[in-house]
Amino acid sequence: MSPTLSAFARSPDRGRGLARDMPVRWALEEVGQPYGVRLLSFAEMKEPAHRALHPFGQIPTYEDGDLALFESGAIVLHIAERHSGLLPDDADGRARAIAWMFSAHSTMEPPIVDRGMATLLESDAAWYAARLPLLDDRVRARLGDLSRRLGDRDWLERAFSAGDLLMVTVLRRLSGSGLLEEYPNLLAYVARGEARPAFRRAFDAQLSVFAAASDR
Amino acid sequence: MSPTLSAFARSPDRGRGLARDMPVRWALEEVGQPYGVRLLSFAEMKEPAHRALHPFGQIPTYEDGDLALFESGAIVLHIAERHSGLLPDDADGRARAIAWMFSAHSTMEPPIVDRGMATLLESDAAWYAARLPLLDDRVRARLGDLSRRLGDRDWLERAFSAGDLLMVTVLRRLSGSGLLEEYPNLLAYVARGEARPAFRRAFDAQLSVFAAASDR
Repeated sequence: MSPTLSAFARSPDRGRGLARDMPVRWALEEVGQPYGVRLLSFAEMKEPAHRALHPFGQIPTYEDGDLALFESGAIVLHIAERHSGLLPDDADGRARAIAWMFSAHSTMEPPIVDRGMATLLESDAAWYAARLPLLDDRVRARLGDLSRRLGDRDWLERAFSAGDLLMVTVLRRLSGSGLLEEYPNLLAYVARGEARPAFRRAFDAQLSVFAAASDR
Repeated sequence: MSPTLSAFARSPDRGRGLARDMPVRWALEEVGQPYGVRLLSFAEMKEPAHRALHPFGQIPTYEDGDLALFESGAIVLHIAERHSGLLPDDADGRARAIAWMFSAHSTMEPPIVDRGMATLLESDAAWYAARLPLLDDRVRARLGDLSRRLGDRDWLERAFSAGDLLMVTVLRRLSGSGLLEEYPNLLAYVARGEARPAFRRAFDAQLSVFAAASDR
């Protein structure tokens, strides 16, 4: 039996791979695990049947036999623990890769999502132009720290891990902002992630869902 | 050898237990693991010696033999994996508790921190009064979902877990906002967490650091 994900029937990102099924698809492709996808409308996401799987009425969910999981970070960790290739074999390296997973979601993502939310929801507000430089600087503070730590290495630790997978996924949200371009080593890091065959397969899979929905 | 945490020499929360060493202290108390604490000034946190342990120049860090970790969520998970009492024994229950850990940091905390940051950094801004209701509503959306899921149960899953530990820690940031009071079952949930002896010991330990610093 293959696990089943849930994903947007029509992703609001128009197939740019920014929805949260993307890191789960990518992780499954990295470890060679086939999966099924259940597509949901926005209305279906908020119905009791889906909320039983996801308390916040979001995607993705992950169903495998009796297990139902939510939260993309937790799902990626679950996949990484059950297959080889996404976490180092040694205990200390494994713990550090997991630290980067939390770091991607807890430290790097919030100011990036903040900036994205302001652009999406408050761009007509009187305060938008005055606030945007503050939001940009909060993102830059994190990017500067990450850029210093990464230096000229390919990945955050010795080899590609689930920590890089989530970090690249988060940094991709800055596409179009111009901020990532201020840190050439981070731009190259994201490009290295996007060049992985497993990323390409995951990206193409989510794009084909959006393209099919647009044809209808 | 006991592990060593880093924490604020003078916590900006004035000993209310909102700094990020608190969940790590709480987890260590739950499992009965003694620990040492290294106190850092704000200047020391940004120096290269500390940045080698924490790429973002923050607290807490966790050092245990050769292992150095950062990110409170990852440290709590590391502790939970190495001791009994913070994760269910069955694999599916364990995965779900970890999902709540990610959920606390990735889904619940961002709008709560947003609201806190606005109150702290933008309360003099012209837009503050107009934005605050938007921020409150984003927090309420998450609280409503969590409240529905929790219902009349004591904890998010069958027994207290590291997922509850992080969720209670995050919800405590709403203290003083009045928002938690709109959801009586969440208020009682936080109180249940705070009533645990391990929480009290952790809280008292961080408070004594602040009190000693204030005496100097």
